[in-house]
Amino acid sequence: MSTGRLEAFSDGVFAVAITLLVLDLKVAGPGTRSSSLAHQLVHAWPAYATYVVSFMVIGIIWVNHHTLFVSVVHIDRTLLFLNLLLLMFVTVIPFPTVLFADYLRSGGWDAKVAAAAYGGVMEAMGLSFSAVFWWIGTHPELLGDPRTPAIQRRAMRQFGLGSVVYLGTIGLSFISAPVALAAHFAIAVFYVVDRTAATARGDGLGAVEGPEAEPRDDQ
Amino acid sequence: MSTGRLEAFSDGVFAVAITLLVLDLKVAGPGTRSSSLAHQLVHAWPAYATYVVSFMVIGIIWVNHHTLFVSVVHIDRTLLFLNLLLLMFVTVIPFPTVLFADYLRSGGWDAKVAAAAYGGVMEAMGLSFSAVFWWIGTHPELLGDPRTPAIQRRAMRQFGLGSVVYLGTIGLSFISAPVALAAHFAIAVFYVVDRTAATARGDGLGAVEGPEAEPRDDQ
Amino acid sequence: MSTGRLEAFSDGVFAVAITLLVLDLKVAGPGTRSSSLAHQLVHAWPAYATYVVSFMVIGIIWVNHHTLFVSVVHIDRTLLFLNLLLLMFVTVIPFPTVLFADYLRSGGWDAKVAAAAYGGVMEAMGLSFSAVFWWIGTHPELLGDPRTPAIQRRAMRQFGLGSVVYLGTIGLSFISAPVALAAHFAIAVFYVVDRTAATARGDGLGAVEGPEAEPRDDQ
Amino acid sequence: MSTGRLEAFSDGVFAVAITLLVLDLKVAGPGTRSSSLAHQLVHAWPAYATYVVSFMVIGIIWVNHHTLFVSVVHIDRTLLFLNLLLLMFVTVIPFPTVLFADYLRSGGWDAKVAAAAYGGVMEAMGLSFSAVFWWIGTHPELLGDPRTPAIQRRAMRQFGLGSVVYLGTIGLSFISAPVALAAHFAIAVFYVVDRTAATARGDGLGAVEGPEAEPRDDQ
Repeated sequence: MSTGRLEAFSDGVFAVAITLLVLDLKVAGPGTRSSSLAHQLVHAWPAYATYVVSFMVIGIIWVNHHTLFVSVVHIDRTLLFLNLLLLMFVTVIPFPTVLFADYLRSGGWDAKVAAAAYGGVMEAMGLSFSAVFWWIGTHPELLGDPRTPAIQRRAMRQFGLGSVVYLGTIGLSFISAPVALAAHFAIAVFYVVDRTAATARGDGLGAVEGPEAEPRDDQ
Repeated sequence: MSTGRLEAFSDGVFAVAITLLVLDLKVAGPGTRSSSLAHQLVHAWPAYATYVVSFMVIGIIWVNHHTLFVSVVHIDRTLLFLNLLLLMFVTVIPFPTVLFADYLRSGGWDAKVAAAAYGGVMEAMGLSFSAVFWWIGTHPELLGDPRTPAIQRRAMRQFGLGSVVYLGTIGLSFISAPVALAAHFAIAVFYVVDRTAATARGDGLGAVEGPEAEPRDDQ
Repeated sequence: MSTGRLEAFSDGVFAVAITLLVLDLKVAGPGTRSSSLAHQLVHAWPAYATYVVSFMVIGIIWVNHHTLFVSVVHIDRTLLFLNLLLLMFVTVIPFPTVLFADYLRSGGWDAKVAAAAYGGVMEAMGLSFSAVFWWIGTHPELLGDPRTPAIQRRAMRQFGLGSVVYLGTIGLSFISAPVALAAHFAIAVFYVVDRTAATARGDGLGAVEGPEAEPRDDQ
Repeated sequence: MSTGRLEAFSDGVFAVAITLLVLDLKVAGPGTRSSSLAHQLVHAWPAYATYVVSFMVIGIIWVNHHTLFVSVVHIDRTLLFLNLLLLMFVTVIPFPTVLFADYLRSGGWDAKVAAAAYGGVMEAMGLSFSAVFWWIGTHPELLGDPRTPAIQRRAMRQFGLGSVVYLGTIGLSFISAPVALAAHFAIAVFYVVDRTAATARGDGLGAVEGPEAEPRDDQ
């Protein structure tokens, strides 16, 4: 299987998963609830907050997925199935997102469980991304450029760190669900800013064009 | 990241978002409502009207997105995340669409709030598209053709105008929700006709083939 | 815009619309209904029948869409928006499909209205496909091969015939909804068999490879 | 039609179908049920189990679909429609998945019927995949490599075996629904492990790169 096909299929899954998040945004129709629409729309802020965070997370995974696969030239079956494992946790994201939105305001133990479930799916997604990284980093024959493994391993360490941070959000959930949501938002903002800064520095895997020195128009 | 990948992912998001609009079209099943199906289908006209307008809007954004990215040959991280911001507002569109359809006939303040919410999402989408335009227009190194920046800036002015017009629809919402819907329809028709006319004139960015003089079969 | 982008976006819309049909297949969960699951599954046959017919219809449109665009080398704005019009009616198909399935067994006027709504969407889809055909047939400069226009016009006549046949199914709906469904199934089977036979004859546009005499591996 | 277009459309359908599975994961919102969220989440284990199994099944079909079409260079209409038949059963998978999840814990005859319906759809999907294999295996002119037919026929025998195994799961359903689910999971694991092992052996169609000896970056 060519990397192009794997990327195209993964892109399709990312695109559908990120778009399905909108199904979580809804208010009661007219006649089914006593409060005004304006009140309902304001009241639904947890749905918007979790929508934005989950959208950013899937968007960041997509960006990192491409940055990673730009340097991959061969795909073996193990990588294929590790990638499917990653996609499985990506497609699951809309489920804990709606849980988090629905239970955030209800408070108490349920809100904490919902926040922990959200953190748990993020952790599982992060670990499966690390597994993809690890497999590529330990199989240089899958890469087209001999310089890449060192870069990959460094990026893998960054990702390993991410997995520890997500573990922290699970712990944080049992202290405060809104604080856990804020932490998820902060992590997402960090990845966006950090990666954008990396481009400015022209930094290894952080650069959009990958390890190649020259832009490639022909992909 | 190549422009091809960004465009393919964006296309996927556009395709899913535009197709999810159909989930807003529904009537009560047999036995759950006293009126005849024919009466229900006629009564559901706001759902058809908002479906058509939102479909046109997403379709137009897709056309403009491609026309714009035809001339882009490099992607930096900022452009990547500005594009994700645009996609976030595109995928949100089904939510205010169903709001608008559900509340249009209920009248009163709720209908006006629903219309304003619809206008607000359009405004946010328009502004994020302007941000994409602005970034490309101020970074000529992302473009393959030195003539393009001027064209981009002109198109950006047109889009800036669009953002002002969408602001107007928000104001119009508080006068009359049906008139606001008609305004959104008129704006969409204007973009379709104007762009089609631009092709006939062989006009800069308005032309489908982009700034290149020759047709490109190899894309 | 290149034909590749238009085809990729159209493919995405076709793929999402054809997959969303499955959302119409559902039975009541345990504890919400008195009859056994086996009885419910048997009772749901109209949902399977309409699912199969709509799946075939979208599949056939997709095949014809590609067969048509293989010979197109330029896209103008009018063609772009006519194609969007076609896609709008394709994405609508899941709506009358669920109507038809829900009301088929209820009988009476409602079943006839549901059947007519289904036929009406098919008619609108057929007419918008004819418009795409007509635009291409009357604009030979969009085609890469001078022999094609005559073939296109013949195919367009076949499609025009299809539009008349769909008009007939609307009339048939008011006689009997199940007979109208059978007619839609027969039309779909006819298109599958006829087109497959056309391949065997190596017949003009009917052949999968299009008007080119040689197979093209490079697409 | 080029194989690229058929694969791209099939990829789109696979991506949407695999992502729609998440819609089956849901719990009651706050205030609509008396049990705690933690209890509900634990109680929902059949939804997770069926989600994982169906995700693996669609993922495996996708991998096999590509492995198969790598060696196909021509598409005739019959293959096109056999492929659509396969896609029809793939897109149906979310329906028996939710049935299986909903009825697994209810026990009794309904759970067995749900398990049998799941097995029945898998059987239909397996048979339609076998039909695609059979058509390609008996039409060597569709293939680019003369060595392939023998490999295809061997793979087809493996798939034929799969169809028999799926028949067995239907029988097993009437003994025990949970055991039938475990069998589906075991079959999926077997396909993942077996195919991964085949890569290590560099084995014919089992190898990811297909029958070609050299990696192909240009696909």
